[in-house]
Amino acid sequence: MQSVFYPRSVAVVGVSSKLTNLGRNIMLNLVDFGFDGIVYAVGPNGGAIATRRIYKSVIDIPDHIDLAVILVPARFVPGVMEECGQKGVKTAIIETAGFREFSEEGREIEDQVVEIASRYNIRFVGPNCIGVINMENGFCVPFPRLTPFIRKGDVSIISQSGGVGLSIMNHMAAEGIGLNKFVSVGNMLNIDAEDLLEYLIGDKGTRIIFIYLESIRDGRRLMDIANRSPKPILVFKSNIGQLGQNIAASHTASLSSDDRVVDTAFRQCGITRIHDVTTLSDYMKTLRLPPLKNKRLAIISRSGGHAIVAADACELAGFQLADFPEEFIREIEKHFRASVIKLTNPLDLGDLFDLDVYHKIVNDTLEQDNVDGVVFLHTSVAQTEHEHTKKLLGHLESLCKKYNKPVAAYVSANSYEINKLRADFDFPIFTQIVELFRALKLDFEHTQKIAEVDSQEISPTFVVDKKRVNQLIGNAKSENRDLLLNEAMEVLESYGIPTTKGLTANSAAEAKQAAEKLGFPVAMKVISEQISHKSDVGGVQLNLRDSESVEDAFKDMVTRIKKAYPEADFGGVMVQPMAVGGREMILGGRQDKQFGAAVLVGLGGIFVEIFERASMRIAPISKSEAYAMIEELSGSQILMGARGQKRFDIEALVNATLHLSQLLTDFPEIKELDINPLRLFHEAEGCLALDARIIL
Amino acid sequence: MQSVFYPRSVAVVGVSSKLTNLGRNIMLNLVDFGFDGIVYAVGPNGGAIATRRIYKSVIDIPDHIDLAVILVPARFVPGVMEECGQKGVKTAIIETAGFREFSEEGREIEDQVVEIASRYNIRFVGPNCIGVINMENGFCVPFPRLTPFIRKGDVSIISQSGGVGLSIMNHMAAEGIGLNKFVSVGNMLNIDAEDLLEYLIGDKGTRIIFIYLESIRDGRRLMDIANRSPKPILVFKSNIGQLGQNIAASHTASLSSDDRVVDTAFRQCGITRIHDVTTLSDYMKTLRLPPLKNKRLAIISRSGGHAIVAADACELAGFQLADFPEEFIREIEKHFRASVIKLTNPLDLGDLFDLDVYHKIVNDTLEQDNVDGVVFLHTSVAQTEHEHTKKLLGHLESLCKKYNKPVAAYVSANSYEINKLRADFDFPIFTQIVELFRALKLDFEHTQKIAEVDSQEISPTFVVDKKRVNQLIGNAKSENRDLLLNEAMEVLESYGIPTTKGLTANSAAEAKQAAEKLGFPVAMKVISEQISHKSDVGGVQLNLRDSESVEDAFKDMVTRIKKAYPEADFGGVMVQPMAVGGREMILGGRQDKQFGAAVLVGLGGIFVEIFERASMRIAPISKSEAYAMIEELSGSQILMGARGQKRFDIEALVNATLHLSQLLTDFPEIKELDINPLRLFHEAEGCLALDARIIL
Repeated sequence: MQSVFYPRSVAVVGVSSKLTNLGRNIMLNLVDFGFDGIVYAVGPNGGAIATRRIYKSVIDIPDHIDLAVILVPARFVPGVMEECGQKGVKTAIIETAGFREFSEEGREIEDQVVEIASRYNIRFVGPNCIGVINMENGFCVPFPRLTPFIRKGDVSIISQSGGVGLSIMNHMAAEGIGLNKFVSVGNMLNIDAEDLLEYLIGDKGTRIIFIYLESIRDGRRLMDIANRSPKPILVFKSNIGQLGQNIAASHTASLSSDDRVVDTAFRQCGITRIHDVTTLSDYMKTLRLPPLKNKRLAIISRSGGHAIVAADACELAGFQLADFPEEFIREIEKHFRASVIKLTNPLDLGDLFDLDVYHKIVNDTLEQDNVDGVVFLHTSVAQTEHEHTKKLLGHLESLCKKYNKPVAAYVSANSYEINKLRADFDFPIFTQIVELFRALKLDFEHTQKIAEVDSQEISPTFVVDKKRVNQLIGNAKSENRDLLLNEAMEVLESYGIPTTKGLTANSAAEAKQAAEKLGFPVAMKVISEQISHKSDVGGVQLNLRDSESVEDAFKDMVTRIKKAYPEADFGGVMVQPMAVGGREMILGGRQDKQFGAAVLVGLGGIFVEIFERASMRIAPISKSEAYAMIEELSGSQILMGARGQKRFDIEALVNATLHLSQLLTDFPEIKELDINPLRLFHEAEGCLALDARIIL
Repeated sequence: MQSVFYPRSVAVVGVSSKLTNLGRNIMLNLVDFGFDGIVYAVGPNGGAIATRRIYKSVIDIPDHIDLAVILVPARFVPGVMEECGQKGVKTAIIETAGFREFSEEGREIEDQVVEIASRYNIRFVGPNCIGVINMENGFCVPFPRLTPFIRKGDVSIISQSGGVGLSIMNHMAAEGIGLNKFVSVGNMLNIDAEDLLEYLIGDKGTRIIFIYLESIRDGRRLMDIANRSPKPILVFKSNIGQLGQNIAASHTASLSSDDRVVDTAFRQCGITRIHDVTTLSDYMKTLRLPPLKNKRLAIISRSGGHAIVAADACELAGFQLADFPEEFIREIEKHFRASVIKLTNPLDLGDLFDLDVYHKIVNDTLEQDNVDGVVFLHTSVAQTEHEHTKKLLGHLESLCKKYNKPVAAYVSANSYEINKLRADFDFPIFTQIVELFRALKLDFEHTQKIAEVDSQEISPTFVVDKKRVNQLIGNAKSENRDLLLNEAMEVLESYGIPTTKGLTANSAAEAKQAAEKLGFPVAMKVISEQISHKSDVGGVQLNLRDSESVEDAFKDMVTRIKKAYPEADFGGVMVQPMAVGGREMILGGRQDKQFGAAVLVGLGGIFVEIFERASMRIAPISKSEAYAMIEELSGSQILMGARGQKRFDIEALVNATLHLSQLLTDFPEIKELDINPLRLFHEAEGCLALDARIIL
């Protein structure tokens, strides 16, 4: 993978001397970005470009080639790859479009390319991409003509769209954020986004990784890699709505995941999801400062108005203003000519502009134990202050490092001045106060979140009857059907999820017998493969108080169901003791194409309508994750004993969720599972699954 | 007021030849911005500056002076103003700081300045401000040294902080938004923000007005002026939190309003409130496009990746993609060399870049009746495209005008290119896709909101017994106390708010008699000036079912209250018939220092805790506003008959709210009024105030 970014000798295939030739752009980009290796041009018509020979084939090059950049029409790509193989080229970047995303013929050409690459052991990026930029060695091979438009820095980018990648680099450049490496992945036939992520995590020059994705191939692998990353990973995942998916289908030929699953998965593996470029650059700025570990800030400002706006923003972002001790204030007071201004936090510097004093004040402020970070609001009033401002930013940067606390620098100056400072400086410069505090908030939350992900507990494993579940699922599968109610309940029991113990009955008499054995009142539910919404057809009868009612209910149920579903298999009924009291919950699971099993918990009954959303996690989950799922449910105060009510048995619910997580992990053939309702009782009284549906 | 922005001859007072002299900066700024009038320098030491004479006094200038810019130490300002008066100068900008905001002595100097100005009939801006910029005539008098850093445009700014104003202009310049007029208002001793707002509403060059405020002087006047404005008014009101207020107290010596009242008032008069500079520039861009009247957009893109991001953003912002009819698609198909790309909305232009074709496609798209606006996603790939991109933007601008529909242009290009385009162009350029759609959403919501404000109905006036309320309030005032329970209930009755008709009683026997007259069951409530939380001391007894209970309750109440409040005046009790059924609401009112009377409606009972917030409006309100107040209550579905329940008598609640609005408007001496609870019954059954508190 190293030679994707650090080749020593490169062949650009598809070069001609025509001004509109894109291969020519690549040649010129490499020169302009100062690539430190050797480049050869290749093109079928030969000739010369910028005083260099254009070889007719890679084979003709009188030198070893580490990497070939290929930009010839799709139908010629297999031939070029074959030649590369013969030449011993082990790495390629195929920028050509017109493959799978374009036509059936393109797909066939792709297959040939894959075959040749595997035969010669060539690893390649693309096809259908704009290539790679490495600011460390000037390796810059995108086909649009580029001049060095961005500074070298420590942010690296993996992008599934060349256009989006370029526009994000443009935005970074405008905000003064430097680039380390960029790679446009295209159709990912060989090297994919996950491979590149793994590489960049180990890459010395990269400190922050940003990924733009339109689809996720292997969500589990992405999670595994991200989980091991000590570097922040930011992901913009597009193609999430119905509208976007329609285009993407023709654009990248990829299927999108349920977006909520993506959200959940990212959070679980410490990936920070980005939804707009403003937030992205906020992260790219604050993540390069030392982490903000607590909420107490000091604001130092040259303008009273800025200090007011900052104090509001500080409060709205949930931060506090650190208290300055008396001695500290007396110390900094010495620097002011007269006690013109009340010295407090925010500290108004008034018209004082003395670099040494600024340095001393910020130093002393950062030294305070109760100050977690400093916001410095600078106004560069006149052109004459440019040099001073530059020095000031240098001071702030070194103080940041000295105290390992963030100093967020806001500079108010005209845009020429800002652009000049940003071109000179790697230290982040903010130009909007409210946005600066939002960025600090992102930083703070990110620090908290990473701490959570770092302290990962192991998901518990319980002793369960896996064999029995295997049998039940095997049976159903062999009959090509989903599980019946009684089977589903048995699956839950086998995995330690308590159910209301019911008995099956095939006749009114059996039902009566079962009810008498269980004790009144009882509930009766139809067992049938074809009927998934039992209550709609009278397939659920609650609160049957005596034998007569049970017999009547059975007969009634049979009649009604025969009428509603004449073709349905009637598998008898399940008679259950009535559960009294408690609150209805919903517990469930889904298999996601990209991320595998996900567990869901939600409030049931009328609360489903009021509080809509369930909590979700990718399985397997840990105990604290199970607790967190319940806590984050809106309306969960109801369970916790709010308003003087009794607390419900949260522990039992956590336990059931953890067992369910194990079940879904052990049996990926379970496509969908719903326990609805799970009746949750008061503290220490447990919970009971009253009904369940398992779809294979 | 005209001469604040368009003086023909100006004296800058406080100029010396020293390099650090701020008056000198003003002189040079006027030259650099190309001021088209005549300027004289004045300074006590005389001498010369940039080859011009410095006059020792305004009086010495051998010419008429329209306006004096004054920047001398505070203690000299009265003298300079006196000289200006004698010279016949009728307008001044006093930039000097160190007045009321600084010391008691400063306040005294201020008083002198005000006296002199009124004696000579001088109108002035400031003191404690950085002055005025008018891009129409190059009048630029802030004391920091400025070079022309922003283009002439149609946005004008009123700012209560010079520093914040400057930084916002810098941001506008960076985003390519032009400035018309800027004024920093300072302490507003004479000309205030409202005066300037009124001027700018009538000003030809101004199309959008932005105001930065740290305090509001006369909220009602601000509302009145804003209500009459056909131009959009954007306000950033800072100093809203506890932290900010502490600084502002020393910074501008102004008191802040309850921030929710500010929110409400702004909404009612059509002011758009801004909370960050990003949103501000979004508004400044979209408000200069034709209004977006409906939600159907067409997206035209040069990059497939951008189209996907845009389609997501379109959906998330609540917009729709307009359907393109078959004929339309066949028409634009002609422009593509081969049917490489599926033509749909978003329309992917692929590698086609032909200005005439672009023009034709956008033209034909805007012509579609079902297209309300176009989003054009442009990528300026190479340096060579600069001229074409410029022309394209020119085309888009003229098409916008032709069809009176917005075309939002996104340009992906390196920052040099973007800066160049922005310097050349007044047409808004977006550089972030998600942010572009958010801006369009702001535009759409703004258009809707303005339509609502425009269709203002008159607040109704009811026949009420104002005289009786006058008496009741007069009595209480003369005894220097608030209203008693029975008086408060009578006030409500006099203003047509139905109350549960109670009887007062001063002894157990009287209470029994009252209860028998009213019929059982009854409620009994203590009447006492000193006891505001009656139930805490057993001052409320509900559901008394017979005469004996009434007598017992009375005695019990007297004993308990004597014990809890030995000093309290016992004013007897109020016996009320028990209200059965219905739901508890809270109706109330407050007097705000800046905006006057505000009406509040909220859900009562346990819902107070769940749904916290009440709705608020500045009185007087119209019928639709009263309805809107109820609709916007979170949890109001409960009243509207959700979940198959009976609808409550919303009309009665609206009616009570309108009557309350009139009461609060008629009697500004009512500081606080709470009807808690107001019992609201089912449809057509009305409502009843069960308890009320009126504080003067």
